[in-house]
Amino acid sequence: MLDTALEECLPPEDRFPEVIFRAMRYSVLNGGKRLRPVLTLAACEAVGGDPEVALPAACAVELIHTFSLIHDDLPALDNDDLRRGKPTSHKVFGEAIAILAGDALLALAFEAVTKRTKGVPPEVVLEVTRRIASAAGIGGMAVGQVVDMISEGKQIPPETLEFMHTNKTGLLIQTSVVAGGLLGGGTPEQIGALSRYGQKVGLAFQIADDILDIEGEQERIGKTVGSDLRKQKATYPSLYGIEKSKELARLAADEAIEALRAFDHRADPLRALACFIVERQA
Amino acid sequence: MLDTALEECLPPEDRFPEVIFRAMRYSVLNGGKRLRPVLTLAACEAVGGDPEVALPAACAVELIHTFSLIHDDLPALDNDDLRRGKPTSHKVFGEAIAILAGDALLALAFEAVTKRTKGVPPEVVLEVTRRIASAAGIGGMAVGQVVDMISEGKQIPPETLEFMHTNKTGLLIQTSVVAGGLLGGGTPEQIGALSRYGQKVGLAFQIADDILDIEGEQERIGKTVGSDLRKQKATYPSLYGIEKSKELARLAADEAIEALRAFDHRADPLRALACFIVERQA
Repeated sequence: MLDTALEECLPPEDRFPEVIFRAMRYSVLNGGKRLRPVLTLAACEAVGGDPEVALPAACAVELIHTFSLIHDDLPALDNDDLRRGKPTSHKVFGEAIAILAGDALLALAFEAVTKRTKGVPPEVVLEVTRRIASAAGIGGMAVGQVVDMISEGKQIPPETLEFMHTNKTGLLIQTSVVAGGLLGGGTPEQIGALSRYGQKVGLAFQIADDILDIEGEQERIGKTVGSDLRKQKATYPSLYGIEKSKELARLAADEAIEALRAFDHRADPLRALACFIVERQA
Repeated sequence: MLDTALEECLPPEDRFPEVIFRAMRYSVLNGGKRLRPVLTLAACEAVGGDPEVALPAACAVELIHTFSLIHDDLPALDNDDLRRGKPTSHKVFGEAIAILAGDALLALAFEAVTKRTKGVPPEVVLEVTRRIASAAGIGGMAVGQVVDMISEGKQIPPETLEFMHTNKTGLLIQTSVVAGGLLGGGTPEQIGALSRYGQKVGLAFQIADDILDIEGEQERIGKTVGSDLRKQKATYPSLYGIEKSKELARLAADEAIEALRAFDHRADPLRALACFIVERQA
């Protein structure tokens, strides 16, 4: 369902000027984990909504995630050659097209959610759009990426590490969850609980990601293992060590599940996702 | 009114991490012509609306315009050192921050229009947001920029030149006009007329811009005169010559004004803007 919907958001590769559409499709349709959109759909289901109505928003958060990967990989930023086991966008299409494809995906996210969402009051779609814009920009990712960059090679205090992760990764994950809840018609109490769940799941994900960068097998995670270490990036393991980091990730996942205690079986996919996030191997 | 509103959209420079907010403010608050937002406010007025309701959308189109300038100036794209008489963003803040500041401005545009627009039905705000997203992305700017890039140093047919300009510049200008009309509560006929006006004004602007690149004084236009020529960019003067280009610009402005014939005196600012666009010296 999700991959078909993503595919439908993207113009065909043979439309002029082909290279931008090829670049957009190359990065979006390459078998990512789809964590954020899956959280959106699961959160919609958890409040009793039809996941179909949350599908455009789910696509939007995945498009934004993909945009951020393309730009983060650029030579001026992380300068990464591999992503999900394949050459990064700028390696394949050149820097200019990678920059423009990222820009286009960011804009497309807002087009997708505003144009394709059906069967939801317009004020709810507006609220979801506003939250996604904030998480993608100065209310999240843009700020986190800057802190990541200016912290490279420096000793940073735990508060700065947390600020960086919350902004760079956490807020879009949390917003993906909350968006699903809003589109599914959740009550304010449910949205509050989903927001807490999303915050904890985002934290668990980031710690797990830091651990994988050290312990993962290159083949499985599809990027260069140990790249954070080489770049002297601040990570949870570098601050707390591996064992303590694993404990923190599990604790965050437990707290995420605890936040869902008032939900019935329809929140089981969200509960399972919290477990998956800390147990994943790639 | 407009500059205050833009200022209010942007976080203060002393918020952490300061460099991104400094970079965003540097490029937005530097005395641009504000053509797009002025068109939005004037179009709102032309249909009898209160320009105040169109102010967030006006800010959004200017933020998007600024984002596009920052990214277009990057070394991987046009590699320009000067913009509006000042060093370009990447010259001042470095490439990484310039990329991220552009990204943040694009996202901020959608946050501004969805969060700050008041006194307009939410479905209208959604429609405006959708149109802006399209014009900023694959329905406009992203595509035009790619064609501009891949056409450098090549002889291109007039259709491709027009396609490039329509997408790169024209559609955001047209959308700026239509957004104002929609937010002001224009009738479908009025929106149709504004759309024609916006299309012609966008064309006139682009031709005039091409002419200025050749005839303007460097000091006045604030970028390097003749830079299109040096980069062997396809332009109206390179295809049609200066005199014929001037005629085409005047014709487009006349057609823009003609599209407003059913409007009363409240469309006078729009009429004046069409004249200004072809007569401007910078």
